[in-house]
Amino acid sequence: MRIFAILTIFCCAFFYVNAQSRSASPNIVLIFLDDLGYGDLGVTGALEYQTPNIDKLAHEGMRFTNFETAQAVCSASRAGLLTGCYPNRIGIAGALRPKDSIGLNASETTIAEMLKQHGYATAAIGKWHLGHLKPFLPLQNGFDEFFGLPYSNDMWPADYLGNPAKPGTPKASFPALPLIRGNEKIAEINTLDDQARLTKMYTDEAVKFIKKNSKNPFFLYLPHSMPHVPIAASAPFKGKSKQGLYGDVIMELDWSVGEIMKTLKQQGLENNTIVIFTSDNGPWLTFGDHAGSSGGFREGKGTIFEGGHRVPCIMKWKGKIAEGVVCNKLASTIDILPTIAAITGSGLPELKIDGVSLVPVLEGKDVSPRKYFSYYYDGNSLKAVRMDDWKLMLPHNSQTYENIKTGNGGKGGETSFSLKVPLALYDLRRDPGERYDVKDLYPEITAALLKQADEVREDLGDNITKVEGKNRRPAGKL
Amino acid sequence: MRIFAILTIFCCAFFYVNAQSRSASPNIVLIFLDDLGYGDLGVTGALEYQTPNIDKLAHEGMRFTNFETAQAVCSASRAGLLTGCYPNRIGIAGALRPKDSIGLNASETTIAEMLKQHGYATAAIGKWHLGHLKPFLPLQNGFDEFFGLPYSNDMWPADYLGNPAKPGTPKASFPALPLIRGNEKIAEINTLDDQARLTKMYTDEAVKFIKKNSKNPFFLYLPHSMPHVPIAASAPFKGKSKQGLYGDVIMELDWSVGEIMKTLKQQGLENNTIVIFTSDNGPWLTFGDHAGSSGGFREGKGTIFEGGHRVPCIMKWKGKIAEGVVCNKLASTIDILPTIAAITGSGLPELKIDGVSLVPVLEGKDVSPRKYFSYYYDGNSLKAVRMDDWKLMLPHNSQTYENIKTGNGGKGGETSFSLKVPLALYDLRRDPGERYDVKDLYPEITAALLKQADEVREDLGDNITKVEGKNRRPAGKL
Repeated sequence: MRIFAILTIFCCAFFYVNAQSRSASPNIVLIFLDDLGYGDLGVTGALEYQTPNIDKLAHEGMRFTNFETAQAVCSASRAGLLTGCYPNRIGIAGALRPKDSIGLNASETTIAEMLKQHGYATAAIGKWHLGHLKPFLPLQNGFDEFFGLPYSNDMWPADYLGNPAKPGTPKASFPALPLIRGNEKIAEINTLDDQARLTKMYTDEAVKFIKKNSKNPFFLYLPHSMPHVPIAASAPFKGKSKQGLYGDVIMELDWSVGEIMKTLKQQGLENNTIVIFTSDNGPWLTFGDHAGSSGGFREGKGTIFEGGHRVPCIMKWKGKIAEGVVCNKLASTIDILPTIAAITGSGLPELKIDGVSLVPVLEGKDVSPRKYFSYYYDGNSLKAVRMDDWKLMLPHNSQTYENIKTGNGGKGGETSFSLKVPLALYDLRRDPGERYDVKDLYPEITAALLKQADEVREDLGDNITKVEGKNRRPAGKL
Repeated sequence: MRIFAILTIFCCAFFYVNAQSRSASPNIVLIFLDDLGYGDLGVTGALEYQTPNIDKLAHEGMRFTNFETAQAVCSASRAGLLTGCYPNRIGIAGALRPKDSIGLNASETTIAEMLKQHGYATAAIGKWHLGHLKPFLPLQNGFDEFFGLPYSNDMWPADYLGNPAKPGTPKASFPALPLIRGNEKIAEINTLDDQARLTKMYTDEAVKFIKKNSKNPFFLYLPHSMPHVPIAASAPFKGKSKQGLYGDVIMELDWSVGEIMKTLKQQGLENNTIVIFTSDNGPWLTFGDHAGSSGGFREGKGTIFEGGHRVPCIMKWKGKIAEGVVCNKLASTIDILPTIAAITGSGLPELKIDGVSLVPVLEGKDVSPRKYFSYYYDGNSLKAVRMDDWKLMLPHNSQTYENIKTGNGGKGGETSFSLKVPLALYDLRRDPGERYDVKDLYPEITAALLKQADEVREDLGDNITKVEGKNRRPAGKL
């Protein structure tokens, strides 16, 4: 037993030194789930299934509880994540469609471009959704490799149950869903069985990429297609959870995280790899039991309530980030780029970005990296602004999932934009559920936030008040 | 360094054996906070203050995310906790007042009585609230020692700011708030400065009790008076948090937890002590910034929504309960008595109880200890029933904290019972915020729960449908 203990100490010391020597270029693994709700993990309250691998990640890393996505829909969220900008600054709002001929502007710098210049091998494996035409695909945006779908897995000529779309519906005009390698279509996703293979395919590709690059720094961006509808799980996971198909799908994604972590360990990369896990937006609640859970936050995807915007986030870096820490500081997906820049010394993009480095909180300092998250946009409409934990709802009409007929079994429910949101001040410290308007109690804070809203409008514009915005940069166009 | 490692192994082995030899009688420390909301801890999302000691407890133990209090008000909740019964079974519903002449019936068995028969030293330090008259006090309910208040700290002839109560209000008729040792009043709590000393006084008493009993098994029940209004923090904590007085109060309670843990460690009791941390009910939201946060769950104290009923719970037993595990199984404060009985082999009370042992989940087994929590009572009114994660709201009028004028700075807001809750089925798996009625999607589950409601009414009665209930046992009467 003594010998074993001594050996352990030697080994640890060896790996530590080994990690230190490469610490300026740690590998980055960025796992990005699609429509995963805040409450969908074991560690955030999932009830009828387990996510042991993701929970372990949280236990061994830092879990953020106050983490905002850039915008609560697919394309805009991804644009913010990869560029460190509010999506509206760079002209990507809402979700791109297969008929759109725009995408990420070549003048914007992605995390991949930043790290490539710094000597990293880079890969995007999964859903892209920042422009499906060639000039906008990952290979033209700093990635050495791409394998996956150009956009959401529901943008195919079928409904959410895999049946051919009804003539006259938008879906009926969608082309077959292409699976792409590099810049080329290599196959089509035509059935739910095809969809069920996506998580495993992405995982296998990711494992291969890690193994291939175990001797050089790499950036692996793994934006899964699941649990976006139409959800599907592969045979070993079908029926595995007590929560039906949605639970099965999350359990397979959890398995995928486990495979990534296992590979990193096997390759001796655990000490030299930062793993970041988060989601693009909250759950798409209209799909009932095929949707995730906001964990009690109000509303879901496509709204500026916290149920749409607040996402789980975990960051692990063995030996560098303290284990099992819960960080409640306001932070956002747009902060990931500057955080990686600070850690790797890669240098920030030339054009103005909006993210801030989270390194101080990762080091355990009790500081707030950002005071404002003032850009709760829905498309190009500014619907709320936030300062610290004060969130001011600006008057607007909102999609709502409450008091409507919900869907189930893969069928969507009613869609309703009937919620009339008045000017209201929420104190997210005590009221993360956004139900108790306190603007009358805090008139000065309300006034400060109204002023802030004007500044935001002047900066990036607002469709509701018809303000143009002087610092918008255009999306890339064909 | 080698020698140190070897020494560490020897020491660990020594303590392990030492702990094993006493494992049938581990010490129990039960820390019970008052009106602490689900979201009030760092680990559950508190934003503007830290709770490092409680977070550490969670990191080293098991944290429950689906933990229901017995009833969402002071006295009933405590009755359930200490007897393992639904409070309505034993005649304690709602909150006792200083004029009431009832209390816990002597025929009921408390955790303290159970453990005392098993050779434990027992103490209650803090707020009792199960009858303030002598026959009902802790010393007559299995506790060797009592130090604290007989009921809530707001039951005094003053308002929540410490000003003398207005003539004609219920508070004006309250007697001075007595501080009791054993069965005797030893002082009065007359000012907010007195209130500010409570947390430290309780902590000092608790530390003394642990030290005194370090050589024999003990049960320490530590029901703090804070953060129940009127909230107050002692000088070292005043102004310490960024969230004003409420944050200060929680930080002092967190300090208290730290003192307890430090003492257990110093006394070499860490391996042989189970520490349980929970709260009596959700936050009293009418008090605005003097109330806690439900963390996104709907409503708060005094309602049968999860904001009232769902409480944080952590259980730590070094070497026995796996570290850092999040348990999402349905469990309740009424399960604590049978859990302790199972661990210590103390034998269950003679009269029927409702709790179930949580030992299987503490051992890490993937089992659900309880299928039902069917007794969401408000006073003697049955307002909801639950099976697994399905919660059926029975039609009722509810207190609500939404859309009313909230209080602040120690003043209460409006009180409103204006919420008309219709028959509605919530799926707490995906909808912990209780907003999406799915009864039309699941008619069979709705029917099963309606039947369950009838059985509950037959068992314990229901004021709304005027059913008597055949298994009610009476409270103790003078």
